[in-house]
Amino acid sequence: MPQKEEPHLELYRKVKASTVLEGFPGFGLVSTIATGFLIDHLKCEQIGTFWFEQGQPTVAIHANKLIDPIGIYYNKKYDLVIVHSITPATQMEWKAADLVLEVAKQVGAEEIITLEGVGSQEEGESRGFYYTSNPAHKQRFEKIGIECLGEGIIVGVTSALLMKASQKGLDVCSLFAETHSTLPDSKAAAKIVELLDKYLGLKVDYKPLLKQAAEFEQKLRGMLEQSQKAKELKEKKDITYVG
Amino acid sequence: MPQKEEPHLELYRKVKASTVLEGFPGFGLVSTIATGFLIDHLKCEQIGTFWFEQGQPTVAIHANKLIDPIGIYYNKKYDLVIVHSITPATQMEWKAADLVLEVAKQVGAEEIITLEGVGSQEEGESRGFYYTSNPAHKQRFEKIGIECLGEGIIVGVTSALLMKASQKGLDVCSLFAETHSTLPDSKAAAKIVELLDKYLGLKVDYKPLLKQAAEFEQKLRGMLEQSQKAKELKEKKDITYVG
Amino acid sequence: MPQKEEPHLELYRKVKASTVLEGFPGFGLVSTIATGFLIDHLKCEQIGTFWFEQGQPTVAIHANKLIDPIGIYYNKKYDLVIVHSITPATQMEWKAADLVLEVAKQVGAEEIITLEGVGSQEEGESRGFYYTSNPAHKQRFEKIGIECLGEGIIVGVTSALLMKASQKGLDVCSLFAETHSTLPDSKAAAKIVELLDKYLGLKVDYKPLLKQAAEFEQKLRGMLEQSQKAKELKEKKDITYVG
Amino acid sequence: MPQKEEPHLELYRKVKASTVLEGFPGFGLVSTIATGFLIDHLKCEQIGTFWFEQGQPTVAIHANKLIDPIGIYYNKKYDLVIVHSITPATQMEWKAADLVLEVAKQVGAEEIITLEGVGSQEEGESRGFYYTSNPAHKQRFEKIGIECLGEGIIVGVTSALLMKASQKGLDVCSLFAETHSTLPDSKAAAKIVELLDKYLGLKVDYKPLLKQAAEFEQKLRGMLEQSQKAKELKEKKDITYVG
Amino acid sequence: MPQKEEPHLELYRKVKASTVLEGFPGFGLVSTIATGFLIDHLKCEQIGTFWFEQGQPTVAIHANKLIDPIGIYYNKKYDLVIVHSITPATQMEWKAADLVLEVAKQVGAEEIITLEGVGSQEEGESRGFYYTSNPAHKQRFEKIGIECLGEGIIVGVTSALLMKASQKGLDVCSLFAETHSTLPDSKAAAKIVELLDKYLGLKVDYKPLLKQAAEFEQKLRGMLEQSQKAKELKEKKDITYVG
Repeated sequence: MPQKEEPHLELYRKVKASTVLEGFPGFGLVSTIATGFLIDHLKCEQIGTFWFEQGQPTVAIHANKLIDPIGIYYNKKYDLVIVHSITPATQMEWKAADLVLEVAKQVGAEEIITLEGVGSQEEGESRGFYYTSNPAHKQRFEKIGIECLGEGIIVGVTSALLMKASQKGLDVCSLFAETHSTLPDSKAAAKIVELLDKYLGLKVDYKPLLKQAAEFEQKLRGMLEQSQKAKELKEKKDITYVG
Repeated sequence: MPQKEEPHLELYRKVKASTVLEGFPGFGLVSTIATGFLIDHLKCEQIGTFWFEQGQPTVAIHANKLIDPIGIYYNKKYDLVIVHSITPATQMEWKAADLVLEVAKQVGAEEIITLEGVGSQEEGESRGFYYTSNPAHKQRFEKIGIECLGEGIIVGVTSALLMKASQKGLDVCSLFAETHSTLPDSKAAAKIVELLDKYLGLKVDYKPLLKQAAEFEQKLRGMLEQSQKAKELKEKKDITYVG
Repeated sequence: MPQKEEPHLELYRKVKASTVLEGFPGFGLVSTIATGFLIDHLKCEQIGTFWFEQGQPTVAIHANKLIDPIGIYYNKKYDLVIVHSITPATQMEWKAADLVLEVAKQVGAEEIITLEGVGSQEEGESRGFYYTSNPAHKQRFEKIGIECLGEGIIVGVTSALLMKASQKGLDVCSLFAETHSTLPDSKAAAKIVELLDKYLGLKVDYKPLLKQAAEFEQKLRGMLEQSQKAKELKEKKDITYVG
Repeated sequence: MPQKEEPHLELYRKVKASTVLEGFPGFGLVSTIATGFLIDHLKCEQIGTFWFEQGQPTVAIHANKLIDPIGIYYNKKYDLVIVHSITPATQMEWKAADLVLEVAKQVGAEEIITLEGVGSQEEGESRGFYYTSNPAHKQRFEKIGIECLGEGIIVGVTSALLMKASQKGLDVCSLFAETHSTLPDSKAAAKIVELLDKYLGLKVDYKPLLKQAAEFEQKLRGMLEQSQKAKELKEKKDITYVG
Repeated sequence: MPQKEEPHLELYRKVKASTVLEGFPGFGLVSTIATGFLIDHLKCEQIGTFWFEQGQPTVAIHANKLIDPIGIYYNKKYDLVIVHSITPATQMEWKAADLVLEVAKQVGAEEIITLEGVGSQEEGESRGFYYTSNPAHKQRFEKIGIECLGEGIIVGVTSALLMKASQKGLDVCSLFAETHSTLPDSKAAAKIVELLDKYLGLKVDYKPLLKQAAEFEQKLRGMLEQSQKAKELKEKKDITYVG
């Protein structure tokens, strides 16, 4: 038998990009819906894949195509690489952050943008916030009228990136959207796309955005339901198996 | 005492084969019933064995013969090697996939075929599906009238093989049959054998198939019951032991 | 501090023997009662000891003498080495099998005989069975009128030995006795001694056998009760300790 | 992917200091409130950061600024380095002590001062105590009228430092304040600052102390609540995720 | 950061002694009370310390002095080294036994004496027993009228020492006292001191013994209560912490 291989990153196309955008599923699946929408809308090309050989192996099939658990996508026009994950990094947050840093290194990026939903008990429209420790970026956010996250606790991959990136000489800029729900929340995702659009000058057409985000949410919800059924069947199954 | 030996693959006969067929127990035990049936029906010869030195050691005795937890079988006529497992790969899915890849490497295979049951809440006859990322194989499936799995979540050994095989330069082709039950489901297994028959041109005699699959299901069910009793006795036993 | 030593086998007398007989506690403690009886009855000499540095260290004192958790015994007349364990190999079944294989190697044995109780829901006298993959031994069993175990699931040390021994060029022959109880079952143990007597030609005097096996069962039961009390006291104790 | 990096200490400014003051959250958050107050009040400069790549990554944002989980601060005037942690070292107490010892080594310190709340069921004002095994320091405490902790069980980072520091040739001096609550207790923290003030001659202005400590307690309480909400959301979320 | 250091033994004074006496807390804390009494009564000098970097770090302060979790003490007159532990070796019994063996090696001892409480449901005075496999020592015990432990299950550090010491060429002699309680039992401890006194010829003054043992029990009980409170506070605390 071969030696146990370390989980590894496979970039099957070498590209250069200034910015790496990261979306691991969090509150309201905001980041995953947002990156999924952008990949479709900006017609990004998949340039790599990654997986953790830990936990139950899981892939999704969507529209007759295999969706990698973590896919790396590229958009030349916007000088952007997107790390899009449909599986949460639970208990692998530090490793997931290392993966994003490694992608950033390989594509020669200068900035990492993290997307994250933040819980909110207030009703009404989802508000958006930024956080960055870079004064120049701070100014840019102030200028385009985005509010800084004043107080908060940040957990998960975003949190690990905020700690680790500076040691690698990389800027981290975090975008947050309030979400009122733990269910997939396409409105909060749309909010985050709006912030990104302003910050990166993507010039996304706003009209279809909410509709498309809602469609992607619908698909993801469908996959979640199937996954849930699979788990339930599996639990029953484990009782009847040999061994 | 000897050094702890790594769990390893023992192929006591070296063969060459183009295709490796894999059946680890999943929903409805579809894959295990199907590979068990084929081994009997195609009169395959056992060429190897494998086990994981993890969890409780378990073997089955059936018709006065020892059944290895994971047996490797060979059929010269159909240029086929079958990895047939009667124990689930729970929490060892990645390693089980590595085993299948290693078998494929050692026999010089070009294609891995995975068999899997997929849960379905719809009543009526079990439907079959394929998934492959190879365009030529896709065409062949379309031609013989098998439907592509459009949407779904795939877990377990099949899922790990879908992620890992391409890196090894191997094609993976997955066959799925709907199963309505977590109990052994010989009808769904028969469906998968039908798909395989068409795809590989096995020319299996259809008449006895359902009957034989049902017989194999019966045996497996018997073994499961004994295993269940063994577990129950063991749990009681653990209470009364020294230590 | 010294480096952590690997658990190891200590044979303080080097002997040669054709057969290694193994008894780790299983259903009805059948194997442990049987090997314990034989060690007394055949006046075997202890030639070694073994322990796993895992779990709670436990020794028994019986009749003013220390009983090792796993003792290795030798009988010159019958060309026999016995591995007698009073502690179960729970979660160490593979390692326990490795130990038996190592003993077999060091004493130059050709055959390993495993003893095991098998659960049975049928009332009435305990029946005995054999399993072997060696055709010559099969014939011998048929000749002396012992039935082959036709169908069954075998777990534990016996199961691991059935998988691993052939790779070491060793024959394994398994003897089973039905047991209706998870409590120590000296009748089933007597049945297994009867099978062994026939197979190895021990010429054990049958009259005192049942009585002696019952006596040994009694002692073991006494030790079990003390062990149980020790555990209960320990659990209470853990609540009140410092740390 | 890069090799897994060991969690490590980053001191981005090299300084020399005679004393290292350590505050990991304990009973009543006494030590964290006290070190947080001193960092603000004495206008300490952050010179380093540290994190454990274990458990869930967590950072706090407070007043638009990122608060490191463990920050290293420096005060030239008082020849002091402060290790200030806002996350408990649960199950990493030994490693946290190693971190403090490493900081002490890198800044050339001779003495480590640990701050700790001790539970008390007595009502009334919080009393303060010291413990040291250094006779000279003992005398200094007696002189300034601080009572020695006569009887007690000490757990956590302080306990590990009391065991390990002497091997490194470092003095440890522990300051304790009684706390009646498991909630953040700024009065006990103020007591500990009073002890420190006397011992180190900080000449802290006593008037605003209680008020400021109460303000810091308020902030910490706010962060705790957000953290609690984040956890609750996360637990709900885990149920609905893919994977 | 420095490499993780192995837990290690620190003997700050090199001595030679024929006998090592071991007392890890067990049933009724008999061994810890007995060794604690002897250290005081025989005016033993502390020559070393040890700790396991596993579990929660814990030290006790008693009479203004730090009590090491495991202290090594020396008595020249009686040619004796005592390993006195106030923390149980739960799940570290094998390592604790290795520690005692290492101490024995470093001081050149020939014999290890283990002290242990054994549970008893009989009322009345605590009885004492010995166990040894050394015939000469057996004779000495018979001569001074101490009874051999005929039947029993021995767990913990004593058990591990009974298995491992002979391989190191060391004699082990175990002394047991019946205890009716899981609470600290100074009467049983006094019984064990009486046995030791006879066996080693310590000529301990019997009158104050029970009184002193009771005093030590009282102190230990006080420390246990504080420890219990600390644990309870800690559990509450864990709920409210950041992280």
